[in-house]
Amino acid sequence: MPGPPLPPSGDFGPSYLQACIDAEISLAQAIGVVVEQADDHTLILSAPFEPNANHKRTAFGGSLYCLAVLTGWAWATRFLARNGIAADAVIQESKVEFLAPVHGELRAHLITPTGVEIDKFRKMLERAGRGRIPLRVELRTALGTAQARAATQTGTEHAVAVRFEGRFAAALRARSS
Amino acid sequence: MPGPPLPPSGDFGPSYLQACIDAEISLAQAIGVVVEQADDHTLILSAPFEPNANHKRTAFGGSLYCLAVLTGWAWATRFLARNGIAADAVIQESKVEFLAPVHGELRAHLITPTGVEIDKFRKMLERAGRGRIPLRVELRTALGTAQARAATQTGTEHAVAVRFEGRFAAALRARSS
Repeated sequence: MPGPPLPPSGDFGPSYLQACIDAEISLAQAIGVVVEQADDHTLILSAPFEPNANHKRTAFGGSLYCLAVLTGWAWATRFLARNGIAADAVIQESKVEFLAPVHGELRAHLITPTGVEIDKFRKMLERAGRGRIPLRVELRTALGTAQARAATQTGTEHAVAVRFEGRFAAALRARSS
Repeated sequence: MPGPPLPPSGDFGPSYLQACIDAEISLAQAIGVVVEQADDHTLILSAPFEPNANHKRTAFGGSLYCLAVLTGWAWATRFLARNGIAADAVIQESKVEFLAPVHGELRAHLITPTGVEIDKFRKMLERAGRGRIPLRVELRTALGTAQARAATQTGTEHAVAVRFEGRFAAALRARSS
């Protein structure tokens, strides 16, 4: 089984992850997943509203989940590729809270794991050939005008609409030799 | 805002729920959601493998989640319609465990809530105009031949691949008068 496509620029940025997602996940095209930003500090995926809307004109919970799980998967896939670890990541379990409806574009932000979590994941892979890492993702929603005015004083114009925490597992690929 | 379409036969069966899902959830068509069975004892939704596959030829976790959450939503939507309660159901929070990969058709079975849970949900809606109910869904996967032989002795040829538990909320629709 071939691994993800080679990065076009070696930087494992948005175009690398976009190619991975488009090649590996059939449903991503229907959702309209776009990798907006991908570097060592920030990972943001988005999707347009229309294909993910329900008839009440809010985003379908299943679509919100798909974008969140793909954001976690993208982080793990990028981490493995960037560190030359030939392994695939899968979701094992997750908890999601839907705190507020999303009325427009879906935007998922990865909360960068701690150094301790990343070190543990790397060491498990090195020693046992498999590892696990908890990954947290937030989907944010733009605040209405009155809310935004109040929120600006606390430095944010967005509220967390969906809080996702997933445990991802990775296992080294079997060698073909 | 109009409610779900009127049931074609008054039995709130598969064709009623299929019409609700097709009318209300944009992404359901891309997933290929089919309401297989819907009565007071059994609720089963399925989806074909191909649109939900990843490149490792297993079902995408996001697709499995979508089918599970739609199965819970379908139960709540059917319960409300069947009892003449003009309310909409939404997912509030969920936990999912991915226990085994799904290699073929996706099939989600609702675990019927207990009488106590249903009574509580109904009473909250009557008294407060809003209610909550926990709903459990299992996605099962066919066992391989050796596994199936062993399992037949325990009366099952399927293993649970995905275990979903969601808390759904419903609120009475605002009257237009």
